[in-house]
Amino acid sequence: MPKWDKFLSKESSLLKTSEIRDLLKLTEGKNVISFAGGLPDPTTFPAEDIKNITDYVLDNYSSRALQYSATSGIPELRKELVNLSSQRGISNISENNIFVTVGSQEALFMLFNIMVDPKDNIFVETPSYLAALNILRARNPSFHGIPLTEYGPDLDSLENQLKKLASEGKKVKLTYIIPTAQNPGGTTLSLEGRKRLLELASKYDFMIVEDDAYGFLVFDGDSPAPIKALDKEGRVIYTGTFSKILAPGLRLGWIVADEEIIQEVELFKQNVDLHTPSFTQFIAAEAIKRNVIQNNLPRIRELYRKKRDVMLHAMEQYFPKEASWSKPVGGMFVFAWLPQKIDTVKMLSTALNRGVAYVPGSSFYYDYSGRNTMRINFSFPTEEQINNGIKTLGQLVKDEM
Amino acid sequence: MPKWDKFLSKESSLLKTSEIRDLLKLTEGKNVISFAGGLPDPTTFPAEDIKNITDYVLDNYSSRALQYSATSGIPELRKELVNLSSQRGISNISENNIFVTVGSQEALFMLFNIMVDPKDNIFVETPSYLAALNILRARNPSFHGIPLTEYGPDLDSLENQLKKLASEGKKVKLTYIIPTAQNPGGTTLSLEGRKRLLELASKYDFMIVEDDAYGFLVFDGDSPAPIKALDKEGRVIYTGTFSKILAPGLRLGWIVADEEIIQEVELFKQNVDLHTPSFTQFIAAEAIKRNVIQNNLPRIRELYRKKRDVMLHAMEQYFPKEASWSKPVGGMFVFAWLPQKIDTVKMLSTALNRGVAYVPGSSFYYDYSGRNTMRINFSFPTEEQINNGIKTLGQLVKDEM
Repeated sequence: MPKWDKFLSKESSLLKTSEIRDLLKLTEGKNVISFAGGLPDPTTFPAEDIKNITDYVLDNYSSRALQYSATSGIPELRKELVNLSSQRGISNISENNIFVTVGSQEALFMLFNIMVDPKDNIFVETPSYLAALNILRARNPSFHGIPLTEYGPDLDSLENQLKKLASEGKKVKLTYIIPTAQNPGGTTLSLEGRKRLLELASKYDFMIVEDDAYGFLVFDGDSPAPIKALDKEGRVIYTGTFSKILAPGLRLGWIVADEEIIQEVELFKQNVDLHTPSFTQFIAAEAIKRNVIQNNLPRIRELYRKKRDVMLHAMEQYFPKEASWSKPVGGMFVFAWLPQKIDTVKMLSTALNRGVAYVPGSSFYYDYSGRNTMRINFSFPTEEQINNGIKTLGQLVKDEM
Repeated sequence: MPKWDKFLSKESSLLKTSEIRDLLKLTEGKNVISFAGGLPDPTTFPAEDIKNITDYVLDNYSSRALQYSATSGIPELRKELVNLSSQRGISNISENNIFVTVGSQEALFMLFNIMVDPKDNIFVETPSYLAALNILRARNPSFHGIPLTEYGPDLDSLENQLKKLASEGKKVKLTYIIPTAQNPGGTTLSLEGRKRLLELASKYDFMIVEDDAYGFLVFDGDSPAPIKALDKEGRVIYTGTFSKILAPGLRLGWIVADEEIIQEVELFKQNVDLHTPSFTQFIAAEAIKRNVIQNNLPRIRELYRKKRDVMLHAMEQYFPKEASWSKPVGGMFVFAWLPQKIDTVKMLSTALNRGVAYVPGSSFYYDYSGRNTMRINFSFPTEEQINNGIKTLGQLVKDEM
């Protein structure tokens, strides 16, 4: 074929293949205990309920479920998402504030594309969600970090940086934040913190993109209402996902936002893929309507709480006392800080040789710092794998020290 | 909410809401005979087969069908798409040349994003597919048109323009073409034409994006093999869709291309939506494997052939003799050229008032010319609606003259 590079757009040169991803790909199908993914435990999938629902949908709605549908989502699902949102404390919205997407990944992709220009000032937590950072990197913005503390993002640091930027005459476009059971940090921002962040957004006039992927997956204590629930100015754009509460293989997510924003997303989505699959939307709408999701949640939370406890217990037992790690109240991950001299990127190939995979933490930092950190997943591996894998990993870290 | 405009990216300003779309949206649910859409006849959906398949998939593969899966598509579907491609004459490819997308729309969105920069020289047929043009418009390229004749794109015109551009030292990046049962033109490029286009691509060193949406939907004579089947240099990137041969509500399409290109698309897709829904992919793979698609095709072709004939017959009867129109050998549309004095954009509101909808042809021209043309769909309306609607439309055109 002709030399391909010359046919690429400038933007595509910002998309880089990740050595880490390539390395992890090599382990697929091999006998490796993987803490690297972000996969739900497949025993949480309500397959029988979904089968009943697909039969019902195809018996009653096949001419619509198999046909093209509206770009913003089918009315039935948007209506049910208004209900589901109210269970997260978001009220005073209508179907016109809801937009259905192919996973929350597509929601973030579209939002960052319609909002972020090169050199725009944006804030992200350090660390933050890898796949969201990758979308943002392709937009080539000016990144600013909000350090994560055990109580969530350090808002003092944010305010100082906002002041400094303002004094230099620089505008901030948006802050991307995962306030509840943060990925990868596992922290949750308090109600007071949420209010303060909103005040800062108002004062310094920026938008907040709130990723609530784990809002329904908090297993210790209450899950605070999303920032969107407190938003009176329309500054917050909220994203949710069915991947953690129903099934990721359906690839369904949603946006809650002011109508003007929804309209902009609609224009963009017409270009991306016309609309989200009608069939899977009918399934999700029925799953909410029949309380399949709500009835399944206690079981998922209990399963993950137990697995998290097994992981934390194993880490206490096997990890060196010089290391520290998050005690997540929800979600799927523990994040660990190892002694500074340890480079988790370099350590990965040894780990894979010993039969354990993790994601080096630097992937979760916009500037690829945090070389001494790692993210380890507890939702997918079995309890036995967690125990054995953490034992291997703890020994490896001790050896590296 | 804060004034939203200032939070928009520069690119999003290139996305324009279409007055025509807004106008057509108003007619939804109203008593209007719509020739405007591009919807398959829902009686062609093999709902019972799909129900059997979903039961089978959920009984046997639920832990994979409901789980995250590979960005390029599940292996089962990629394997079946190699088989399906060979039925279109594309051989010598492997699963590594196949990439599964959320409809062929997403395939085109990703390809044009990774290939087209602002001011790049690209060729499109005049007229060409509306939604593909909209993606391209958002990339802000330098458009060049290949006029459509009744035998497909005018390759003499293309060659002359290529010569001229070359003499000015200008490179061409790509040509987007729908060679079989073109949308909206209904024309099909001959085998000789396909060879000549490939030679031009090679000589002037540009890529071809071949949209084969209607390749399986040719009802008169043979469907020539796609250009991709003749491609020895890897210059052709082929896109296919399940929307016309199985069900659009599944939103499934695919790309056939050289591995280097597939890898680039994979990087981009990780940002867009991680992967195409696993569940619907399992359904499509089974539908190919069980010959559901292949067995259904003769029935679809026969149905659309009949509806096309009803439409052409009605046009002979009711349209003024000053008008001309395509005699499509396949696809879903007739394209009509009316006397120059008629402006189909202006005429649309009157048509809607009289109870008939169509898409003004100018939407299918990159430069919004072709104001005297219209696209009319025959796949979705019933035969009675086609007759009555064409009668109304013909009378309207006569009144306007």
